[in-house]
Amino acid sequence: MNPIKISQGGKLETSSKIKVTQKNLAEVYTPGVAQVCLAIKKKPEKVRDLTWKNRSVAIVSDGTAILGLGNIGPEAGLPVMEAKALLFKQLGGIDAVPIMLNTNNPKEIIRTVKNIAAGFGGINLEDIAAPNCFQIEKALRSLPIPAFHDDQDGTAIVTLAGLINATKVVGKNLKTTKIIISGAGAAGIAIARLLLAYGCKNITLFDSQGSIYQGRKGLNFIKKEIAQRTNLTKENLVLKKGIKEADIFIGVSGPKLLNISDIRKMKERAIVFAMANPTPEIMPEIALKGGAAIVATGRSDFPNQINNALVFPGIFKGALKNEARAISQKHKLAAAISLSSLIKNPTKNNLLPKVTDRRAVEAVAKVFQ
Amino acid sequence: MNPIKISQGGKLETSSKIKVTQKNLAEVYTPGVAQVCLAIKKKPEKVRDLTWKNRSVAIVSDGTAILGLGNIGPEAGLPVMEAKALLFKQLGGIDAVPIMLNTNNPKEIIRTVKNIAAGFGGINLEDIAAPNCFQIEKALRSLPIPAFHDDQDGTAIVTLAGLINATKVVGKNLKTTKIIISGAGAAGIAIARLLLAYGCKNITLFDSQGSIYQGRKGLNFIKKEIAQRTNLTKENLVLKKGIKEADIFIGVSGPKLLNISDIRKMKERAIVFAMANPTPEIMPEIALKGGAAIVATGRSDFPNQINNALVFPGIFKGALKNEARAISQKHKLAAAISLSSLIKNPTKNNLLPKVTDRRAVEAVAKVFQ
Repeated sequence: MNPIKISQGGKLETSSKIKVTQKNLAEVYTPGVAQVCLAIKKKPEKVRDLTWKNRSVAIVSDGTAILGLGNIGPEAGLPVMEAKALLFKQLGGIDAVPIMLNTNNPKEIIRTVKNIAAGFGGINLEDIAAPNCFQIEKALRSLPIPAFHDDQDGTAIVTLAGLINATKVVGKNLKTTKIIISGAGAAGIAIARLLLAYGCKNITLFDSQGSIYQGRKGLNFIKKEIAQRTNLTKENLVLKKGIKEADIFIGVSGPKLLNISDIRKMKERAIVFAMANPTPEIMPEIALKGGAAIVATGRSDFPNQINNALVFPGIFKGALKNEARAISQKHKLAAAISLSSLIKNPTKNNLLPKVTDRRAVEAVAKVFQ
Repeated sequence: MNPIKISQGGKLETSSKIKVTQKNLAEVYTPGVAQVCLAIKKKPEKVRDLTWKNRSVAIVSDGTAILGLGNIGPEAGLPVMEAKALLFKQLGGIDAVPIMLNTNNPKEIIRTVKNIAAGFGGINLEDIAAPNCFQIEKALRSLPIPAFHDDQDGTAIVTLAGLINATKVVGKNLKTTKIIISGAGAAGIAIARLLLAYGCKNITLFDSQGSIYQGRKGLNFIKKEIAQRTNLTKENLVLKKGIKEADIFIGVSGPKLLNISDIRKMKERAIVFAMANPTPEIMPEIALKGGAAIVATGRSDFPNQINNALVFPGIFKGALKNEARAISQKHKLAAAISLSSLIKNPTKNNLLPKVTDRRAVEAVAKVFQ
């Protein structure tokens, strides 16, 4: 079906848990609702029982990094947030609402999100460009409700889950593999951080200027920080050199950066996660022809889709149910491991469950118990 | 049924217009949704067809003036906004979302609302205390979508509609009646303004210090403004003196301010709209015993409920459908007249339609055509 046709009239709605009648109006609305307000005023924690707060999430975006489309603004980004709200509801039972921001000033975004947080149980940051997204996510840790930037941590969790199973298939130890990451935006940095937390020792990130190393001129604050913990030999290489002898390529950058000869430079039983959307860094059939043992992409029309939707509904379902105030690195690691363990015997074309597999939500949610 | 029981687990939900399946995932979500984003990027006005923007409203409150409960804060105010969202959906087909603000600084509220407006078709300000609400509502007129403070203008419209029919019943000319308004907050000021716009010439407002007149010490900016257009003889009286010879008493203040002897001071065939909630300025049976010809309240358990729910669903339904950028004084006057005309032969106990009467929504909405 045509995406434009599907979106006609919008995809998201509100609905009522009770039908309002002339008879129950005085209990549902005024004056009866005053009793509910006073109950919360008296015991503030009651807001979780007596309102939607325990299952509501604001999907906050400034429209600066919508899919692979870049900065298309808040209105043009809205269809993504509506679709995401559908997945939140259908997969996680979470009532999510798009909040599109007219500003892309990070301080202003932080301020606005803090101002509107009271009515929600969690904040899902979405499609906010790096490096602002890191500053925003960090500042929002002071909120009494969890904030999660799905493009960073959702992507990192599902990538790690996929890699755990991929290394199992090829018989390598993920912690000692040579890993290169193409892309040092929200996803690339968050993936590197989570792989480091998992115990990976040999990671190098690449941006459009080549490898990121300590002391490279012009690095932004977040690249500086990651340079201290990756590429420890401080190699200065372009991607097509850096890929030599790599066990794992992780692409969160742009379309068609690699060709078959690049894959041939990788170690045997190489793993290629080419996740640029909609066009991957290399098409799966070419990577396989070049000798890759396993290929994953961001797309649903190839095997091994690395899709955040395996993660975010469960993260918020678990965090809200268990009243977690934050989503920690420990939660993220546990979520990746739990998700990967759903596939008992992973194979080349079966690394992760399908997005609509309800076990995924539960596997992720349970790490908050 | 018990209001607390009704609110258990919250009253509001989101829902999907499409069921997401493994098969349609690529069209509903990524990568297909990119087409929808690009269509809006190319033609910004398409956001109204391809998202929920044409039917979504943010119900914005800082919790400073919740019902008659005062400043109980954003969390304790949330149940009212949820209930309001149910009425929006059920009566007007509008998808409304509570936005509870952690700040009650008017500049900060204005800034926050401007920042989040892009994803909504309208802004319904709710239960924000006077005089801040006037400053906020005025500043938000610069938004490209309509903003409406229901406690001001919703109340004013339904009050005027009720008074048009009440004066018809008692055979008086509303424009020349002596009107006193007890309460100079959001509702009192807005009612005075709309009655002035309708053509009423003899209005006096009272606050806790007595009558409001030009030159009175300590008036805030909004009372100063209204003092220029009301109480033209600049009388300095307490409410219980001011009510003498009044044709119409409008109470938007507090419980039990009047007794039977106060009503006896009014002109014959007096009209008493005692709208404080949940306890009116005078109970209907006492006002009637004191000689009032017609009594209306804010409550659904007495005849003649003056309920904003007769107005706000239609206001937004009409404004959004017709892409009105603002809700003008002309729209408000027309809405009051249209609503009052639904009752062909008003009587003492039948001034206005019931809240659940769907004709009310249409009567109000059509003024935007």
